[in-house]
Amino acid sequence: MNYSSKLIEEAVNAFSSLPGIGKKSALRLTLQLLKRDVNEVEQFANAFVKMRSQMQYCLTCHNISDTFICEICNNKNRDASLICVVADFRDVVAIESTNQFKGLYHVLGGLISPMDGIAPSDLNIHTLIERAANSDTQEIIMALSATMEGDTTNFFIYKKLKDIDVKISAISRGVSVGNELEYTDEITLGRSILQRTPYENSLMR
Amino acid sequence: MNYSSKLIEEAVNAFSSLPGIGKKSALRLTLQLLKRDVNEVEQFANAFVKMRSQMQYCLTCHNISDTFICEICNNKNRDASLICVVADFRDVVAIESTNQFKGLYHVLGGLISPMDGIAPSDLNIHTLIERAANSDTQEIIMALSATMEGDTTNFFIYKKLKDIDVKISAISRGVSVGNELEYTDEITLGRSILQRTPYENSLMR
Repeated sequence: MNYSSKLIEEAVNAFSSLPGIGKKSALRLTLQLLKRDVNEVEQFANAFVKMRSQMQYCLTCHNISDTFICEICNNKNRDASLICVVADFRDVVAIESTNQFKGLYHVLGGLISPMDGIAPSDLNIHTLIERAANSDTQEIIMALSATMEGDTTNFFIYKKLKDIDVKISAISRGVSVGNELEYTDEITLGRSILQRTPYENSLMR
Repeated sequence: MNYSSKLIEEAVNAFSSLPGIGKKSALRLTLQLLKRDVNEVEQFANAFVKMRSQMQYCLTCHNISDTFICEICNNKNRDASLICVVADFRDVVAIESTNQFKGLYHVLGGLISPMDGIAPSDLNIHTLIERAANSDTQEIIMALSATMEGDTTNFFIYKKLKDIDVKISAISRGVSVGNELEYTDEITLGRSILQRTPYENSLMR
């Protein structure tokens, strides 16, 4: 496309460098910015620079954090005996949104995937072992995706933790709440029968 | 959503202030920026600030421009006797992409719309009259949307230009190239019969 303006072109290219934003959407977003005040646009742009330059990783759980130790690890009201292992920061956001978990997290930074060249040593696994060995820790909850990579990572960590006196659990797999049985895939449905729970538990919210 | 980080939250809010970007997409985009180098993100952010603070409107055609007079108006190879009237900058980009028009543009900055409180005086109409009165101008092509607002604006400008010795034309309306007759709405189809063209002309590309 010919924008007959270098300035517009650069802004469009910046937006379209983001995943899922094409040239047409990028132009729409650029023109929307053009309608704003100069200092509003400066604030908009600054949010990204500030985020990128000041962002840190929590020294304990490797979660994204504004400080050396993240808000969650620093929170004295949370249950430090429970550690939930997740692949990345987005999973923390997702679990936090449920308001069902009051323990701490451990962010691996990915999943073991030989195809993508991600080895166990690339992930934050050895700090997890250290945390698990700490006498405060009583339970490790594995909350990884139900994919081959997730299962591999689960198994690898399970083997590493075997000799440590800590309970290891995994989030339950089954039919999604609100889903029809008819449209649930057979593997999920099969698992949900094998891992059936007492009826009283299924009433819990 | 709880991001447990002010920095992430601000970046997510900046992205989601754009039209069509929700909180989840905004988080995805933010985490993508986090993967880039600090100076890459600075460049990204700078593109918007630079665009907003340096952007001007061409003094002749009111198109978005890096300079006082835009690239198109400044181009000596373009036919200055032809002026194509469009509602906004995006229409210029769309027409430029066709490579079929070698004249100049006039950007109205919107369409007359009493419902949205846009009166003729809010648009760049009086500079168009001046340009039309210029002896160099031979033809004004109205290229506005086929909506009520577009038709109203067309008619308003047509009345204003009536006493000036200039040819006024409008872009043709009809069945889109590649479209089936069966799925074309009846108003478009009716117009395309009334405004039929000699067969030889329809072969032109």
